[in-house]
Amino acid sequence: MHKVVEVELGANILAANMRIADANRELLHKHSVRSFDFLGSIGSGKTLIIENLTDRLKSKGLRVGCIAGDVAGNDDYKRFVKHGVAAENLNTGKECHLDAHMVDHALERLPLKDIDVLFIENVGNLVCPGDFPLGADKRVVVISVTEGDDMVRKHPLIFALADAIVINKIDLAGAVDVDPQVLVNDAKRVNGKAPILLTDAKHAKGMDELERALGL
Amino acid sequence: MHKVVEVELGANILAANMRIADANRELLHKHSVRSFDFLGSIGSGKTLIIENLTDRLKSKGLRVGCIAGDVAGNDDYKRFVKHGVAAENLNTGKECHLDAHMVDHALERLPLKDIDVLFIENVGNLVCPGDFPLGADKRVVVISVTEGDDMVRKHPLIFALADAIVINKIDLAGAVDVDPQVLVNDAKRVNGKAPILLTDAKHAKGMDELERALGL
Repeated sequence: MHKVVEVELGANILAANMRIADANRELLHKHSVRSFDFLGSIGSGKTLIIENLTDRLKSKGLRVGCIAGDVAGNDDYKRFVKHGVAAENLNTGKECHLDAHMVDHALERLPLKDIDVLFIENVGNLVCPGDFPLGADKRVVVISVTEGDDMVRKHPLIFALADAIVINKIDLAGAVDVDPQVLVNDAKRVNGKAPILLTDAKHAKGMDELERALGL
Repeated sequence: MHKVVEVELGANILAANMRIADANRELLHKHSVRSFDFLGSIGSGKTLIIENLTDRLKSKGLRVGCIAGDVAGNDDYKRFVKHGVAAENLNTGKECHLDAHMVDHALERLPLKDIDVLFIENVGNLVCPGDFPLGADKRVVVISVTEGDDMVRKHPLIFALADAIVINKIDLAGAVDVDPQVLVNDAKRVNGKAPILLTDAKHAKGMDELERALGL
């Protein structure tokens, strides 16, 4: 009995999240905002990649908005603000992922009519964020070579649902003895559709390719 | 109403986990097994640190057991087995953390009377594993400098409950422009008691200090 309650409650939470995600998507489309949910491992370079893309889009005259999602603190939020974009900070407290309801509140506070592209940075975690769509057009999954060559094999589901896969910090591949091609091959095995990008965001390498792959 | 059910169910799950964790602890003590739960970020080097400690303990004549916890796959389990120790693999499927019940089953399969020290490697995640004690004597939290200098500020809770904190991959600190001292200072701020170790497990540096800090 206990288990039935648990399963039903879990299903309810996911269904409720999905409904709010759909509403978020509608709201964003109404304002012609293109949106990207960046998921990925802890410290894989999500923030720096978004900062990099933000500067590129700004130089093309596009208006960018950013939502920083973290368990605690506002380190990433402060980094986004420095780029002169509309930004919101979301702290999840004890949750290891953003959910559509939290993003809904951030969207209420953002000036959507003045935003062309919205980047949402999820909490660093390769498991649970996958279960909670936020309503973004595309999901980008970011890992870095410094985490080892077994990251895709250990977390296949999140790669399977990605619209783009980024393997970052390839400048450090030699230092950590990781062959990025192993990660590429594993990613292709679980997701035959998503483009796979090799980047070194610190030195702005691979960013042209990523920008194109995201249709930006 | 919905929320009350949710909160009560959450509390029940945590309370049930705690009861099983207590039983695990009792079982381990009955067999004079000293146990360590390694929590930490994805790809921070938990497996390599455990492998390193395992070889050191074996050379002192101690018998080691290892439990590998991952969402999917058996990469870490296979690494442990190569060191000739009793090992078990736990796949969590869609959960981002081990729980005491899963570990309970692994303990049933392990030859506890032939084990002096048990290492449990939790799923790579700096949030949820903190809520689920497994019954181990000590919790060791591992991060690596390659994740950035904001890891403690972003996940203060898990550092607050650590019995030891390991900052790994310090050989790469220069390459990623991270000052390990920032992480040390942040860790001291949230946890004044736990020893903080700087390690470079790949080149076996800082392992003497870690071994001593864990009382091994």
